[in-house]
Amino acid sequence: MAQHHYYEKTIATEKIFDGRVIKVLVDQVELPNGAVHTREIVKHPGAVGIIAITEEGKLILVDQFRKPCECGLLEIPAGKLEKNEPPILTAGRELEEETGLRAENLELIYTFYTAPGFCDELFYMYLAKGISKVENPASADEDEFVDVIEVTIEEAEQLVVEGKIRDAKTIMAVQYMQLTKQVK
Amino acid sequence: MAQHHYYEKTIATEKIFDGRVIKVLVDQVELPNGAVHTREIVKHPGAVGIIAITEEGKLILVDQFRKPCECGLLEIPAGKLEKNEPPILTAGRELEEETGLRAENLELIYTFYTAPGFCDELFYMYLAKGISKVENPASADEDEFVDVIEVTIEEAEQLVVEGKIRDAKTIMAVQYMQLTKQVK
Repeated sequence: MAQHHYYEKTIATEKIFDGRVIKVLVDQVELPNGAVHTREIVKHPGAVGIIAITEEGKLILVDQFRKPCECGLLEIPAGKLEKNEPPILTAGRELEEETGLRAENLELIYTFYTAPGFCDELFYMYLAKGISKVENPASADEDEFVDVIEVTIEEAEQLVVEGKIRDAKTIMAVQYMQLTKQVK
Repeated sequence: MAQHHYYEKTIATEKIFDGRVIKVLVDQVELPNGAVHTREIVKHPGAVGIIAITEEGKLILVDQFRKPCECGLLEIPAGKLEKNEPPILTAGRELEEETGLRAENLELIYTFYTAPGFCDELFYMYLAKGISKVENPASADEDEFVDVIEVTIEEAEQLVVEGKIRDAKTIMAVQYMQLTKQVK
């Protein structure tokens, strides 16, 4: 692919933090006008989210506490990519771990950067079709505590309007349902 | 507001990085089952995005290089909150700086977390109404190089389908236009 016309060449890079989930770099870059500027960059392994709709046409949401926000959030099931794990496998794994459900089919509907101003997190959004309960589901990560709820599309829309759904990917999922009438 | 039932109490917090844009903390938290776990947290000042539609019903996008992704992205006009700046003022300022446009009215349509798994960035999405060219617009940040383009709603949809729009807030904006037929 051709280089972008506003490409910023890296002159120097400093590793600030190498954590369990994220890495933090500070790069010195050369701007298109020749000036040198600093970019603070969060490196993230990438993540998946799953729009899972029950036979009754209800959207599956998880209610969990999010430490960075110091609040609970209603979100579609989601999770980080493990190293070298293809995103579709992450999607199946996270759906089972968080909700005890399995999908016959997972279709990739969007791929996007969540916060490209400072972070390289690439997010894969799947639509799960043909979902059913798993008898003995794989258990969630040891640090994950979530409640699973089901809402109708009307309830989901209302939760967005009332500001009770306030997670980007989940608003996107509700809009996707509205646009495609992903109700049975 | 009542504490979430999976609330994680902070036992210790370590400041890893205090940058120009972001801060990074590593918190030790007590999980609901009593176990202690580490949370890596990026603190961000928050940001705004603007869905601006011309008199001809075209969506305003900016094409810019994004260092974290090492690629160019097509995005709606957006920018970080300055300290103590009300989001609606940030929205007006960023719209003018990035596009040379001004809005008669800015309506807050969504408020959401962009990446709540590791970051507290809260994003305010505005719909700009009554936009017009500013004669001598405020200039952009010294490190910002963007091209402004206008696309029809059909072109915007196609760019999403083709994976040429791959920014979360911009996909959300295109969905919003589709749902509300925000064409003149």
